[in-house]
Amino acid sequence: MRVKSIEFRENRVYLLDQTRLPQETVVLELHTAQEVTRAIEEMRIRGAPALGVAGAYALVLASWEQEGEEVDQLQQRLNEAAQEIGEARPTAVNLTWALRRLLQAAEGAATPEAVRQALLEEAQAIQREDEEANRLMGLHGAPLVPPGSAVLTHCNTGALATTAHGTALGVLRTAWQQGRLRHVYTTETRPLLQGARLTSWELVQEGIPATLIVDSASGALMRQGRVACVMVGADRIAANGDVANKIGTYTLAVLAREHGIPFYVAVPTSTVDLSLPSGEDIPIEERAPQEVTHVGGQAIAPEGIEVYNPAFDVTPHRLVSAIITEWGVVRPPYQEGLRRVCSSPR
Amino acid sequence: MRVKSIEFRENRVYLLDQTRLPQETVVLELHTAQEVTRAIEEMRIRGAPALGVAGAYALVLASWEQEGEEVDQLQQRLNEAAQEIGEARPTAVNLTWALRRLLQAAEGAATPEAVRQALLEEAQAIQREDEEANRLMGLHGAPLVPPGSAVLTHCNTGALATTAHGTALGVLRTAWQQGRLRHVYTTETRPLLQGARLTSWELVQEGIPATLIVDSASGALMRQGRVACVMVGADRIAANGDVANKIGTYTLAVLAREHGIPFYVAVPTSTVDLSLPSGEDIPIEERAPQEVTHVGGQAIAPEGIEVYNPAFDVTPHRLVSAIITEWGVVRPPYQEGLRRVCSSPR
Repeated sequence: MRVKSIEFRENRVYLLDQTRLPQETVVLELHTAQEVTRAIEEMRIRGAPALGVAGAYALVLASWEQEGEEVDQLQQRLNEAAQEIGEARPTAVNLTWALRRLLQAAEGAATPEAVRQALLEEAQAIQREDEEANRLMGLHGAPLVPPGSAVLTHCNTGALATTAHGTALGVLRTAWQQGRLRHVYTTETRPLLQGARLTSWELVQEGIPATLIVDSASGALMRQGRVACVMVGADRIAANGDVANKIGTYTLAVLAREHGIPFYVAVPTSTVDLSLPSGEDIPIEERAPQEVTHVGGQAIAPEGIEVYNPAFDVTPHRLVSAIITEWGVVRPPYQEGLRRVCSSPR
Repeated sequence: MRVKSIEFRENRVYLLDQTRLPQETVVLELHTAQEVTRAIEEMRIRGAPALGVAGAYALVLASWEQEGEEVDQLQQRLNEAAQEIGEARPTAVNLTWALRRLLQAAEGAATPEAVRQALLEEAQAIQREDEEANRLMGLHGAPLVPPGSAVLTHCNTGALATTAHGTALGVLRTAWQQGRLRHVYTTETRPLLQGARLTSWELVQEGIPATLIVDSASGALMRQGRVACVMVGADRIAANGDVANKIGTYTLAVLAREHGIPFYVAVPTSTVDLSLPSGEDIPIEERAPQEVTHVGGQAIAPEGIEVYNPAFDVTPHRLVSAIITEWGVVRPPYQEGLRRVCSSPR
């Protein structure tokens, strides 16, 4: 099975609606930048690398929404559109990274037609590069999975979170293909249940032996000696190696350290943000209380209770054993190693 | 507001159905021991102290289901009934503890009528003692809550988990009444959401400022310095102070230690099981996969995914700052202190 989280054909963006999985496989056909931005906000597509590609195609769509033949006006409109698209989700840096790449690619184009062409080619390049980065991360990361072992993962970092294969789940996929991996434990990942809904679905489809647990069972599982390592993705990594990722990642890192279990993070270098010195500088998105108080439209909490619903947390680099990128595995100290992989030629 | 989790009147057990809260307030009227046992299995009543009282009244009902006037036959039947009731939930020791107390109270009674009377009186004594124990735990534990502080709790340990007031939540209730407590953070407590459904409901009813978080946000919350201490209940405490409690408790204890935050456990001495040397000896109930794969009847995971659903985990005593009982606060080393409070006269 080959999952396609996003495709672009004939000026349409096709998204597999991830809020409907695993019950229903619904592909959305989106015509405008605004529709794609809204799909990003509503998490119909999510995962840092997939957000980069979705944002890029949203800007391509935006380039067709500007009437007239003035290049300057079009460039101005694209800057505004990139701003609007980029604000849909603040934490994953891939979104603004991809938009910036597109704007730079279109700089100096002489006609609206040349601008549109440059944007499309750059968006397609980002998508191709992401597929290749995932494949390379798999090859670099798989040797970290001890032969015959069980690995714990969090949220969804598979083909659905990227354009193909996956980041952390991509490493596990490669390790499975190499015969190293025995079992995957996936947290359910409240509130939006990406582990229960999406990672479980990918693992079942792939035939990889897998067990679903509630998030809070991770500690008991590690204490029982059932986990060889933890493998997660990230939404943004600061220059010092601090990792912003799905809420609960920090808890897993603390538990891994307590049990002497390696804690690995797999990301394309597009997720590394060298402009931020540390994780304290990463903006953390807080989402609506209803994500916690309701499941599938049903209330599970009383009226009147306050909710704190941060979508992400920050894991300090001291708890991270290694960061797996498409240009190799980076070990502490991260400052130096991350700079090295980020300056690798594409 | 005064919540009554369980009442016994005219040979009927009345249970507030906790699976329906907070959406519906349904009181079940149960006529037989088997009905009460099933309600316990289905977690319509839960919480270690409440389970003790429910089990006791189930045995009272069983004493009326035995025909004839032979005392020996009745005692024999009661032993069998106690066995069946006690197997409904294996981890909370209060259930078997209460049943044993009833059987002992009825030993040597000369007539079936005297047996039934002894059982009823003992069940009522257990209920009264639990109310009193909760009140005393509140008074002993409240001084541990730093003035003006916010406390994190897990699962439900309130009036619903006991016969009134609560264990850990009872301590917080008393601290609130004394003006010490500023705020409560409650985890939602997957899979059955006792925190979201029950603790939130009790806190809203009581007017105590409270915030609901997903279980995996606990680490981020502690790292932000927003939690002064963690206060939980327990289902069984071994002689060495190891604590079996709702899945996720161990994770909270590890996180609390990492952040230098005290981790307190509040229990009546009926929850202490001196017959077990350590937590390794405590039986841990595993419950149905559907509790994880479905919420409110809706599937949230794909067909074919395996599930590991332990209802409890064990927190080693080295992570426990103090155990609050009705006979005072026990500090490490626990072996000695637990023996002392358990030998206090009722």
